[in-house]
Order: sequence, then structure tokens, then C-alpha cells
Amino acid sequence: MAGNSFGKFFTVTTFGESHGIAIGGIVDGCPPGLEISESDLQTDLDRRKPGTSRYTTARREDDEVQILSGVFEGKTTGTSIGLLIKNNDQRSGDYSNIADRFRPGHADYTYQQKYGARDYRGGGRSSARETAVRVAAGGIAKKFLKAEYGIEIHGYLSQLGPIKVDTVDTNVINTNPFFCPDESKLEALDAYMRDLKKSGDSIGAKVSVVAKGMPVGLGEPVFDRLDADIASAMMGINAVKGVEIGDGFDVVEQKGSEHRDTLTPQGFTSNHAGGVLGGISSGQDVVVHMALKPTSSISIPGQTIDISGNAIDIVTKGRHDPCVGIRAVPIAEAMLAIVLMDHCLRHRAQNGHVQSKTPIIPGSV
Amino acid sequence: MAGNSFGKFFTVTTFGESHGIAIGGIVDGCPPGLEISESDLQTDLDRRKPGTSRYTTARREDDEVQILSGVFEGKTTGTSIGLLIKNNDQRSGDYSNIADRFRPGHADYTYQQKYGARDYRGGGRSSARETAVRVAAGGIAKKFLKAEYGIEIHGYLSQLGPIKVDTVDTNVINTNPFFCPDESKLEALDAYMRDLKKSGDSIGAKVSVVAKGMPVGLGEPVFDRLDADIASAMMGINAVKGVEIGDGFDVVEQKGSEHRDTLTPQGFTSNHAGGVLGGISSGQDVVVHMALKPTSSISIPGQTIDISGNAIDIVTKGRHDPCVGIRAVPIAEAMLAIVLMDHCLRHRAQNGHVQSKTPIIPGSV
Amino acid sequence: MAGNSFGKFFTVTTFGESHGIAIGGIVDGCPPGLEISESDLQTDLDRRKPGTSRYTTARREDDEVQILSGVFEGKTTGTSIGLLIKNNDQRSGDYSNIADRFRPGHADYTYQQKYGARDYRGGGRSSARETAVRVAAGGIAKKFLKAEYGIEIHGYLSQLGPIKVDTVDTNVINTNPFFCPDESKLEALDAYMRDLKKSGDSIGAKVSVVAKGMPVGLGEPVFDRLDADIASAMMGINAVKGVEIGDGFDVVEQKGSEHRDTLTPQGFTSNHAGGVLGGISSGQDVVVHMALKPTSSISIPGQTIDISGNAIDIVTKGRHDPCVGIRAVPIAEAMLAIVLMDHCLRHRAQNGHVQSKTPIIPGSV
Amino acid sequence: MAGNSFGKFFTVTTFGESHGIAIGGIVDGCPPGLEISESDLQTDLDRRKPGTSRYTTARREDDEVQILSGVFEGKTTGTSIGLLIKNNDQRSGDYSNIADRFRPGHADYTYQQKYGARDYRGGGRSSARETAVRVAAGGIAKKFLKAEYGIEIHGYLSQLGPIKVDTVDTNVINTNPFFCPDESKLEALDAYMRDLKKSGDSIGAKVSVVAKGMPVGLGEPVFDRLDADIASAMMGINAVKGVEIGDGFDVVEQKGSEHRDTLTPQGFTSNHAGGVLGGISSGQDVVVHMALKPTSSISIPGQTIDISGNAIDIVTKGRHDPCVGIRAVPIAEAMLAIVLMDHCLRHRAQNGHVQSKTPIIPGSV
Repeated sequence: MAGNSFGKFFTVTTFGESHGIAIGGIVDGCPPGLEISESDLQTDLDRRKPGTSRYTTARREDDEVQILSGVFEGKTTGTSIGLLIKNNDQRSGDYSNIADRFRPGHADYTYQQKYGARDYRGGGRSSARETAVRVAAGGIAKKFLKAEYGIEIHGYLSQLGPIKVDTVDTNVINTNPFFCPDESKLEALDAYMRDLKKSGDSIGAKVSVVAKGMPVGLGEPVFDRLDADIASAMMGINAVKGVEIGDGFDVVEQKGSEHRDTLTPQGFTSNHAGGVLGGISSGQDVVVHMALKPTSSISIPGQTIDISGNAIDIVTKGRHDPCVGIRAVPIAEAMLAIVLMDHCLRHRAQNGHVQSKTPIIPGSV
Repeated sequence: MAGNSFGKFFTVTTFGESHGIAIGGIVDGCPPGLEISESDLQTDLDRRKPGTSRYTTARREDDEVQILSGVFEGKTTGTSIGLLIKNNDQRSGDYSNIADRFRPGHADYTYQQKYGARDYRGGGRSSARETAVRVAAGGIAKKFLKAEYGIEIHGYLSQLGPIKVDTVDTNVINTNPFFCPDESKLEALDAYMRDLKKSGDSIGAKVSVVAKGMPVGLGEPVFDRLDADIASAMMGINAVKGVEIGDGFDVVEQKGSEHRDTLTPQGFTSNHAGGVLGGISSGQDVVVHMALKPTSSISIPGQTIDISGNAIDIVTKGRHDPCVGIRAVPIAEAMLAIVLMDHCLRHRAQNGHVQSKTPIIPGSV
Repeated sequence: MAGNSFGKFFTVTTFGESHGIAIGGIVDGCPPGLEISESDLQTDLDRRKPGTSRYTTARREDDEVQILSGVFEGKTTGTSIGLLIKNNDQRSGDYSNIADRFRPGHADYTYQQKYGARDYRGGGRSSARETAVRVAAGGIAKKFLKAEYGIEIHGYLSQLGPIKVDTVDTNVINTNPFFCPDESKLEALDAYMRDLKKSGDSIGAKVSVVAKGMPVGLGEPVFDRLDADIASAMMGINAVKGVEIGDGFDVVEQKGSEHRDTLTPQGFTSNHAGGVLGGISSGQDVVVHMALKPTSSISIPGQTIDISGNAIDIVTKGRHDPCVGIRAVPIAEAMLAIVLMDHCLRHRAQNGHVQSKTPIIPGSV
Repeated sequence: MAGNSFGKFFTVTTFGESHGIAIGGIVDGCPPGLEISESDLQTDLDRRKPGTSRYTTARREDDEVQILSGVFEGKTTGTSIGLLIKNNDQRSGDYSNIADRFRPGHADYTYQQKYGARDYRGGGRSSARETAVRVAAGGIAKKFLKAEYGIEIHGYLSQLGPIKVDTVDTNVINTNPFFCPDESKLEALDAYMRDLKKSGDSIGAKVSVVAKGMPVGLGEPVFDRLDADIASAMMGINAVKGVEIGDGFDVVEQKGSEHRDTLTPQGFTSNHAGGVLGGISSGQDVVVHMALKPTSSISIPGQTIDISGNAIDIVTKGRHDPCVGIRAVPIAEAMLAIVLMDHCLRHRAQNGHVQSKTPIIPGSV
């Protein structure tokens, strides 16, 4: 219980169901003096919001965030920041047919068993709608990281079904509805998604996130390791089934002589580690990959059971994304920002006064 | 800071360095009345301990755990349990040569930059020696899960370098020094490791852990999801660079019609989800895979920098495992046990009195 | 930082300033299946709300709470509960004169020094307005405690300036604007407050809270003791400067033979301990007293400094309570309810399955 | 459960029973670079330890603390610090007679009911023996506060039964076994205690603690207020039944014009607030008082019940302090140090980089 908060120093707590009155959250721990406005948060909310292309759900939400507290005369005051996003386009009627049955691959069954009851409308709290609040909170963290440390975060789609990205051009990412960084793949993606939609099926995806401009020394050695916190943040995004840091599962077949990143007076010569050594940031780019399953909300009929345990057929209606991985890009960025900000604040507490540190690799701290 | 604790309801806090006087920890939150003794914990400590085969480090440690509190007349009292393991075979002299230089691929550089100083002997706190305490604490969790819920956990080596396991026979796992569940691969593993040792290099590995006898309903929907907590626990194990639940990265190329696990009155017909739906256990086996990098402690010379930023050559001496993945098997089991116990206790708090639940799939709760 | 949450198992997080758009909070950890509606929470909000008598501030707020999530078809779902209370009657203009100076006895100076800036309107986050959210959250806890354990909580004014209550008649408490349980003191209170208001001064008060129907065994032995958590909850209420459990400061002059409460087969014969022994509830009534300072917002001119450190005169305008202790009664009840609910949930987690307990004193568990 | 930790940024976790093998703890969150040795901690351990005067228990313990980790070459490394204190003089036989009965005024009954069993030897975990670990941990905090901020903490006995201290001379405190700061009362205390011991009874006490050299700005505004955390820390000390900050319960009869501390360009003119305004330190001395009950372990026979609920007579044997308040002085100092250090680290995290602050009252920050 009490599992709706994330972060120890910079803490985000959320509330809200897919078809309730509103969703929202409280951001606690933001230092005072940070310039922030609703429009700072809106950019990423718009990137995540539904109804922006034919390849995402047809549900239309403005996703306009309101800052209710914690900001005075344009700057954070150091007190808790209340965030509110109203739900406008609920069509709960779409969901009355699933009140007494469990959509396979969804949380319907586990919620019913865990709580003895559930808000079945649109999946209730298990809906990815809740992630809008994470994106808003992450917007605050992004602004802080950029202003205070020069850290910048960008995510992108690195694979969709069989289509793998070959090159990463960050300028391309936000020019297409797929957050794809490789212009040469856009046509193939478009064709693939068109066919997929026609078939009524859905597809998995791989999403990557990178943090540039990292300081050395973020992360704790044993349990609150930077990589462990990132893994928790990413695996906690709806539909994610795998997380990698740096070379990830490729390390299984690597030798030590090949994997270890050599240090030179000019810096590291490679980044197999993905920017984390012993749970602590090395100053290199933090590189994270994650696998997102295909949504189970598809129009192809399937078999399931009802609340009494009887076998029945099911077709998922409602409005859904054929590839939930796409819209996960701004969510993953937000969660990485929240983790990094949490660790930046820890770092300050630890090293503020006791000693000064001189960077060993010039410009690395 | 204060990053040496894991778990919210069942909390494990550890201390100790590789070459200090002792390592140890405090287990807080274990309910009263659980029969436990040092010998219950020793079994897994012995599986993890160094010096048991020619393929692990030659360091010899008895790893005898002492229970200092919290157990009275053979049963837990409900108060905190103090655990102590003495370090016997420290040869700190082996490490004097790395006091002023950074082993590539190790935490030497990040510790030095984070803290401004470090206990360089054997990697200090970054050494996997600390995981012995996790194994001891996990032993308490394992005992509880078995006694109270009938949950059983077993881990195994699923891949070592190029050698993949084909079949999983749990009876085979503990009969060989590799924790390999496939008897037909033992000879190949032996040959591979012999050659590897000769070459002075190291190799990565994939380790899997499975929990059987799971109840439905463990895990929170949004942030303290069961899969997110597992991801954090596993990524927090030294050398882990990737974590998967169920089909993991295979989902990227799966379609929704293929991935979703069908529910029938007799139960699920497949387990692509790996036992977790919407962050909550489904009652199916929880299936976790992780990738462990090859250790950077190899006898092949490499390049690095010293504490003043000068380029120097380095050869790692000391006694090391050529494949750290092998001994990670009992550690991964322990961490999964700790996560599951934490969620079992949450579950009790939540559902204790408000309502009774009838299992929908017979025998599923 | 991140100091806007209270409770570990039942967690209340609040946001909002005195003169912002709204105040609100998130209640996390409430088990599913509890019947709750806005009107359940409104009763106590109305008891706390300003503008109800001539002895409280003239500010008029409806204090209508809106439940935004976590309740479905009249029952809690087990997910986080979003609460919102709009601010209607802000007259921020009243406060422009304190933007650059520090009211003595207020948090103006400490906020300015801590954060480097502050929302000065009505004291911003330091205003007791925030406590409305605690009262709403406490309403949920009160309902749960009554429904699940039969625990009932009532608070009252036990002293106002020189006027001490002689008898406690719980039926009298809510019949007068002072929450005074002694009918014979009402006239004196009325006269005292009338004179006080005329003089432009304010007065301190003592408030008591009692929980009846307590189970045995709530509280942890060492750090999360029931009495320590109560002390934290009460001292955290605006203006509180002292907290007592049971006989409180009277114990200084007591002897052991006098203080210790004798146990008999029929129960305890006295309650000097105030219902807590060794940090754990004994099943007797939990008895708590607290001292509230006189508000520093008085119309008698005083001396202070401005933001540049210059000496200046100050008269506090705005609308204020001459005795803030009075309205603290429902706040103290709410905080006690939150602490007890937190410990009830812990208790379940701990004792759910391991063993059954037979009460030693009949009817005591 | 899991209630054996205190502090969020600087976290102390303890284990151990009165008559177990050892007691100990883990201090997590201490920044690196602090010079610390066992002898730094021993001073306060010796002040607290039993057997030093005829007015404390006759149990003899060396209370020698061993630092097992987290310190390298005389300085903290930033990792967790393991502390161990062996129990030498256990005479568990003394307690066999209370295995099946409940000493009135003790935690025997509540432990038995909470856990269904208990380590009855010397009160097990409920014994004040555990506080030795708090004193050791507090020693680290004291050293840090002095070195980094110039904060100094001293506690003293301010009342014992009917004998009240008139003057506070800090030079006198450690020259007598009562920690009494008023030389003129020593004779009276001696006579009182001699008579008390003869009578076989015990007496309550009032203890005060003061922190000097405070920075402005420690503490959070709403829930993790400095005063609330202090209240929790003090009420969590064995036998404490009341806590006051500044004027404490005297405020009940004070008027606002009298209570509010006037600010001048030279600083505050009085300290009724006890150094905390709105939950945040004002830079003035933090002043805390607490009431400690008379121990229930007295040689005067009493009535109680046994584990079956039968009425029986009881005489407490074992070796006990006739006034537990005396030895609480170093414990209270340690807990105040732990709270202040926790908030110093928070403060750093919050204000490290965003803005510089200029003190308004010269020398106040």
C-alpha cells in the first residue's frame, strides 16, 4: 500500500483514474528559486497526449496542466507543488461491457483479485492515462537539471516490431509522430502501422533514453544505485518488460577485455557501461533501453473468463494505441529526469561542505 | 545518501567493506513466530561463498553468519535481527598498487569522484563481498515465504558467454559449480572456463530466477509495482546490466494477439507476462532474467589513469571470479525473496480485514 | 525537503498556500472496500472552518472538499485518494504590507532565510489553512478506525488562558464554539474572549484528545513508537509547543509506586500511562494533551525588522483567531486518527498469519 | 513493523536486546571526510553507561563501541557505518521469574500481546540498554555538527522529583553523577536519592537539552518540522511522557503580546519560541524539555497478572536505576544531534546551488 510515490529526495505522488474527474499529483522536494510555468510542462504533455496522430488512440484530451501551489511570482518557493489535469473526453460507456470480465493481458484480473473490486472504466488506475502526471512532474525535473547542471535528456523509438533504427539524429526525433530518430525509416514505419491498424492487432517496441551532460558521482553504491533506480523507474512504466543500461543483454557474450571502458587523460574511450560504474554515474552519457509489450487491447477476438470464472469470448472496444511504445518516449524521459534530479539533490546533501573535489578528467564534474 | 537499505516493509540494511573487520546487516520487519536459525541461512551462504571451485575466486571465507538479536528460543520475536559475518581472509596488501589508480570497468573512479576518497582495498564497499549479507537476509525471507505462502524460489545460470542452456531441470542446478540446470552443457562449460582462465580474461552471463507458488495480488499498481521492485533489486546486484520479466526484450517483435496470455477457467494458457500484470502478481510463476557483465578484474594488461590524471598501464591482481555471473545465482534468489516478502507484508496490511476474497481461478489465491 | 508527507503505511501528502487557487492532498494506503463520501469528511471540515463564530477569524471559506479519485461506487478502491479544497475568500491585498517585513512570532523570517523568498500572502504555506487537508484526510482514517476496530476519537479544549476545564462531558463538546466539554465554564470563556478581542491581544490554550476502544499492540518498540508518532503529529500542528501522553509533566514529581498502573484480571486500575507502555498501546484509552501558543497576529503594535535588517514598527492586519487553540481541536483529532490508522495497518502486516493471539484480559484485543 | 530506524537523510538503525550477545546499529548517510574514531563516541557512552555511581543500576558494562565499517584511515568514507557493543554483564537468571508475568508499568504486557511472545530477559528490546547505540550514533552527529556548523549540544537534569534547578552552569553538568547544572542542589539531590533508594521506590525527572550555534532554516514547514522531529525523537526515549519546545506548557496562559519574540537589527530580544518558528530554526538556541516517568522496576511489592490472566503479587528484582531520568541526559543529547544532523543534510540538498542567501541579522546564518 501507499505505493503511489516515487523518489526519496524529489518525490512525485500521483492520483487519478482514466475515467475519473481529474488526475494529478504532488511534487515535493523541488528547491526554491527555479523558474517554472505551466507552459514549461505543457510541451512534453503535448508530446505524450492522445489524439495527435492516426497511430495513437482517438481519445481527445487537452491535457492542460494547472499548477495549484508551490510557485510564487514565477518561481518555485520550495514547498510542495500541486498539479491538476482534468479528464475531458471520458466515454465510460465504452467500458461497461468489461465490468464483469477480464481482458487478457490487462490488469483487470489482478486488480479484481488484489482489491476485491475495481474501477473498470478504461482500466481505472492501471490506465496509462496516469502517466500524464509523471510527464508533468518530469518537466519540472528536466528544467532543474538543465538550469543547474546542464543535463539534457532525449528519448526516441529505437525499434518497432521488426523495424530497427540505424542512426540517431536527435533533430529528427520530434519531427514525426513515431519519435523516430532515423529519417530513412519513417516510410517503413508508416506502412507497417497502416497495415497493423487494418489487421486490428498491436505491436511491441523498444525505446531508448539518453542523458547528456552528466556530472560524475550520482548514485549510491549498494541499494539506491543510479542504475537500480533507473530500472525501477522504467520497469514501472506501463507495458515495459525489460530494461537495459549501456550494452545491456549484449554483455552476456562479451569478454572483460572487450567490455571494460578504458580511461585516458582525455576521458573514456568507449561507453559499454552506459554511464554507470558501481551504481554511480561516471560522467559519460547515461544510456537506457527498454522493451514495451504490444498492448492487449486489440480488436481481434480472444478468450477469457468472467468474474464468476466462466469461459467467455472478448473483443476489446474503446480507443487504443496500436503501439503503446511510441507514446512511452516522453514518459521515459520524464522518469529518467525524476531519477536524476533525486540523485542530484542527494549529491548536494552529501558533498556540500565537507570537502571540495577537483575533477580528475578536466571538465568532468 | 543513506542508500544502504532495501525494502519498505521488510527492510534490509547492510554495512561493511571487502577488507574490513566484518560485514553485516539488520533485517527489520520480520513478523514474530518464524522459526529460524543460523543454519537456515548458512545453506545459501555456502552456495555463494568464494573458494568452492576452481572457477571462482581463490579467496577463502567461511562466511559464517551470526544472528545477534531478534531471535529468542528459536523463533523471531518481531524485533530487528542483527547479522554479522567476519572477514577472515583479507589480503589487503594485494591492493596497495591500486590505491592511486583506477581499474577500468570498476567503481574506483566513480567512488573517488563521488566521495573525494575511497577504501581501495578490494574495492571496499563496491565489492560483491557485501552481497553475502543480502544472501543471509534473503534466507530469512525464503523461509518465511515457504512457511507462510508456499512460495519457492530457484535461480540458475541460463547462459555463459556463447553457451545457452536448453532445458531447465531444477534437480541439476545445485549438483554443479555453475548452477547450470542443463546436464548436457556441463562439459562445454567446464572446457570454456578452463580456456578462459588460461587466457586471463573474463566472460558475461545470463542468470534466471523463478518464483513458484505465487499468490495473486502482490504489487502496487503505479510506483511500487512488483516488476519495478524486482527490476531495482536485480539491477542493484553488482555487474547486472539488464533485467527482463517474462518474455523481456522478445516482446519488441511480438504482436498483441501473440503476447496476451489467455485466461481460461483452468488458469492461464501461457506465461509471456512472467507472472506480473499491471505491476501485480497474477498467480503464475514469476520469471526474471538478468545480464551480468564480465568482470573487469582480469590479468590482461590495460590502460587507465592515476589519481592525478596521468595515463598508466594496469594489471589487476588480487583473486577474482572469471565469471561473476555464476555466484550471482544465490544473490538473485535472495533479492527476489526479499522483494516478495516485502510485498506479502504489504498485502496483509491491505487486505487483512476489509473483505474476504474468493479466488476466481480455483486454488489461485 | 520533501517534508509534506505524514505516515508510513497510511500516508497523507498535502499541498497549498493560504492564498493560492486551492489546497489539497493525496491519501495513500487506504485499504479497499471502505464506504466513504465527501459528506463523511465535511463534518469535521465544518467544525474546523473559519468564520463560524465571532471568536474565530472572519475569513469565510466553504471548505468543501472534493474527492477526485480512489473511490468508486461509494467505496475506496485501494488506490490513492485525491482531495481538493478551493480557496474562495482570499484577500491577499491585506498582506501586501508584510511582503518586506517579518511579523514577530511568525514564520516570515525563518521562511525568508530558509528559501531566500516566500509567498507572504497570509503566511503562504505556514498558514494553518493547510490543516483543512489534514482534517479531510483524518476523516477517512476516523471512518476506517470506527468501522474496522471500533476506535473513536474525540478532542476538546481543556484550558484557555487561566480558565481550566473541571469535567469532561463529551456530549457538551460540540454544542459550543469553544469545543469545551464543561458546561459550567462556557460563560467565563465567553466573557474572557470578549475582553480579549477588545484588547486586540491573543491567548494560549491546552487541547486534549482521547482515543477510546483501542486494541492492544499498536506501535513499535524503538523508533516508530506510538507515543513518538503521536508527539510528532501533534507538535507538527501550527502553534503547538508541548505534548504530553497520559500524566505528562506530572510524572516528574511522581514516585514509581504511584505511577505504575496495576494490572488485574479485570484490566488496569488506573491510566497514568495514557494508554501506551513501551511505545505500544495497552488497550486503555490513549490520552494526549498539547499546549498551543497565543497567535502572534494581534492588533497591538510591535517592533520588528524589514528584509534589509532595519528596525520598523508592525501591526498585523488580516483576519485572525484570537485563540488558535480552539480550532485546533478537530485538527488534533484528525492527526491522532492518521497515526492510529497507520499503526493499525502495520499491525495487520505483522500479525496477520503467523500466529493467533488470545487476549489475556478478556475483550482487550 | 520495520520500526527500528530513525532519520531520513542521516539514518540510524539499531538492533539488540538487553541480554543478547550484543547490541549495535548502522549509521547511514554520514558524508565522507569526517574525522571519527571510537574514542570520539566513547565519551558519551561512558556518561550513559551503568554502574558509574551508586544512584544508577549496579549492572556493569564497559559499553565499548567498535566501528566495523565506513571509516578508512581515520575518516568517514560516505558508506554505512557499522557499530557493535558487546553485552558482558548479563544476568538473565535474574529475570526467569518474570517469564510468565507482567511487571506493571513495563512493556511486558504490551509486547506479549503484540507479538504473542517476548524475550523477557531484562525487558529484551524494550530495555533502555538499546539506547547505548543511539548515544554512539549521536556521537557521530555531534562531531559533524561541531565541525561543519559550530553547533554544540548540552543536556542537563532540570528537575528530580521535587528538586528544581535554579541556575544552569554548563561547567557544572559533568562534574556530578546527576548531570545537574546547579551546584547548590547537589547536596539535596544526594540526600533525596539516598532516602529514595532506602525506600525501594523510584522518582520522575525533567531533563533539558539545548543546541547552541544554530543556523537559520533547519526544518520543513508542514510535516518534517524541526520541532515535530525533535518531539518524536524525545518521546521515543524510554520513560519520556512529555516534550516541550521553548516555553512549552507555559504558553497556555501567555498572551500573544507577551509570547512573541521581538526581532531587532541585533537579533531577537527573547526566546519564548525555543528557537523554532513555523517548524524552522530561527538561529536562536533550540531549547527542549522532557518529562521522564519514575521507573516501574521497584522493590516495593505490587499486584499484576500472569500470562494466563491470574492475579499475582510481584516484586521486581534485577538491577535498576532509581531515577532513569538521570542517565537520559546523554541519550537526549544524542537524539537532538541526530535530528539536527538530519536537517542539516536536508538543508544542503535544498539550498546548495539555486541561490545564495545573505543573512539579514548579521552572523545569523
